[in-house]
Amino acid sequence: MKLLITGAAGFLGARLARTLLARGTLAGQPIRQLVLTDLFEPPADLRADPRVEARTGPLLAQVAALREESFDGVFHLASAVSGECELDFDLGMASNLDSTRALLDALRHRVTQHGDAPTRLVFASSVAVFGPDEDHPLPALVTDATLPTPQTSYGIQKHICEHLIADYTRKGFLDGRAARLMTVTVRPGRPNGAASSFFSGIVREPLAGQEAVCPVDPDVSHPLTSPRTTVEGLIRVFECSRAEFGGRTALNLPALNLTVAQMLDALEAVAGPTVRARVRFERDERIAGIVARWPAGATAERAARLGLHPETSFDDIIRQYIADHTDHPTALQGLDRA
Amino acid sequence: MKLLITGAAGFLGARLARTLLARGTLAGQPIRQLVLTDLFEPPADLRADPRVEARTGPLLAQVAALREESFDGVFHLASAVSGECELDFDLGMASNLDSTRALLDALRHRVTQHGDAPTRLVFASSVAVFGPDEDHPLPALVTDATLPTPQTSYGIQKHICEHLIADYTRKGFLDGRAARLMTVTVRPGRPNGAASSFFSGIVREPLAGQEAVCPVDPDVSHPLTSPRTTVEGLIRVFECSRAEFGGRTALNLPALNLTVAQMLDALEAVAGPTVRARVRFERDERIAGIVARWPAGATAERAARLGLHPETSFDDIIRQYIADHTDHPTALQGLDRA
Repeated sequence: MKLLITGAAGFLGARLARTLLARGTLAGQPIRQLVLTDLFEPPADLRADPRVEARTGPLLAQVAALREESFDGVFHLASAVSGECELDFDLGMASNLDSTRALLDALRHRVTQHGDAPTRLVFASSVAVFGPDEDHPLPALVTDATLPTPQTSYGIQKHICEHLIADYTRKGFLDGRAARLMTVTVRPGRPNGAASSFFSGIVREPLAGQEAVCPVDPDVSHPLTSPRTTVEGLIRVFECSRAEFGGRTALNLPALNLTVAQMLDALEAVAGPTVRARVRFERDERIAGIVARWPAGATAERAARLGLHPETSFDDIIRQYIADHTDHPTALQGLDRA
Repeated sequence: MKLLITGAAGFLGARLARTLLARGTLAGQPIRQLVLTDLFEPPADLRADPRVEARTGPLLAQVAALREESFDGVFHLASAVSGECELDFDLGMASNLDSTRALLDALRHRVTQHGDAPTRLVFASSVAVFGPDEDHPLPALVTDATLPTPQTSYGIQKHICEHLIADYTRKGFLDGRAARLMTVTVRPGRPNGAASSFFSGIVREPLAGQEAVCPVDPDVSHPLTSPRTTVEGLIRVFECSRAEFGGRTALNLPALNLTVAQMLDALEAVAGPTVRARVRFERDERIAGIVARWPAGATAERAARLGLHPETSFDDIIRQYIADHTDHPTALQGLDRA
């Protein structure tokens, strides 16, 4: 089969590509060709795989050509991130809404003009669709049935795409499934400007022997997940039947609902008290204010029906990061391996 | 003040224009100019008013000019209707989504490029945002907090516009308020292809001395409202403060939740048994199937906080129709005025 991953040079997109290439099959079919689109080149290991074709540039500019090309499946991960969308409204609308609509229209064109079967598409939506509006405070746990009242342009755009995908699917233009990603930890790399950056940083930096600052109080709770569970979720959502997926509404992927204190307890359990001691609390009112408007936790009943579950503890997520980085000694130089 | 009504040649748009012209003021300010846009010319009585300027043609083609023109308020009612959107997907997306976004961008341009204050805009959304998805069956009554899982392209497009208006408002580009209209009865005119047409027809035709066919069972229930209550609701939503409106999420306008049997009991109470006897039940499986997927009733808690309430009975709605049509004798020639 021939697959397309958009946003394939990103952390999750590249991990999804690697996972698919390692499996070799999807939904029981051999993967013969994997087209990776992104603004940036995908990592060298992916480019080296003969099944991979990398196409670099804005998705919107590439979409017209997709009308004349048939795919057996699409994972649509390309997106401007939350902070960018707040700073540059037009960029967010173009990258997240216009690009998605153009992609959906290209796939519709395959059905209406070429007589293809509806292409199966998995859309990476986000827990950012949830936020407290004045008349709709967030519940303790957001569920598949919680009313999304997004409080960022990014969240609005993701939620609008969920609805477009539902309607294109209802019309038979597409076999679309939208899955809401929880906050993925532990992301590799350096701290960035994202308000959520510290959820990875307070684990990643101490393991590398560096100090980390936690800008929120220890009792702040949030729905977290790992890269592996997220990629497994996207693949399972692709592979399930429409009956298994349920209706056309987006579903939540699994989350482990944890406080910062619980995250640090796990860090100490896995890596010892010296590592934990590298985390210092220094409240940043701006970040704390943003995080206070995020869900404190989530449930994922429909994902559970698909056999998708969160890790049993944050220890597992930390161990996953350590296992993923044994070949990158600087990432783990703070870890006492004695 | 200078106001814009889009969709102003339609039944509700023209009634809103007449109501505003008769009041002479909005939010305490005199109405000096009323721009009416629509695909069609507005009725002659509106064109004859010196405060009215009619602009005929597609909204999308008119929007660019709106960037260079300042308005003190907008009522955005222009829309392709549900049946059209199902038949012609591109028409619905252009008329309902692209036109609205272009209008919002023109108003944003006033703020970002000309330094205007955010323009107040009331958007006519619809009870059609509600529908039963497999994982989200409709509750007995849809509320302001019910998760919209629209089951038509029209409902999807209206709901997407609600979210765009919320985000443009959050960003300070607009002072937007989205209000969901319930099913308006009694509409004048002839039966049309809309599945909801009979909700007006089973009152209008018997009053005109004609037979009417009811395509659904007498126990079918639906949230209904009158033209007057709907227009009052749109004006109140415009005039309220942001604090009174609440958050940025759309609100339900008031509805009277009634079965067809209750509607006919009211018809008999107001117009007598001979008029009621002109309604014949002949189940149409197609229409009954569509209506079965509509809400059986709605509540409107936020509208109630604004002092908006439904009529006390359907008798009032029928009497309103009769009072509105005393100058149109053929509309009431079936009514025994003895």
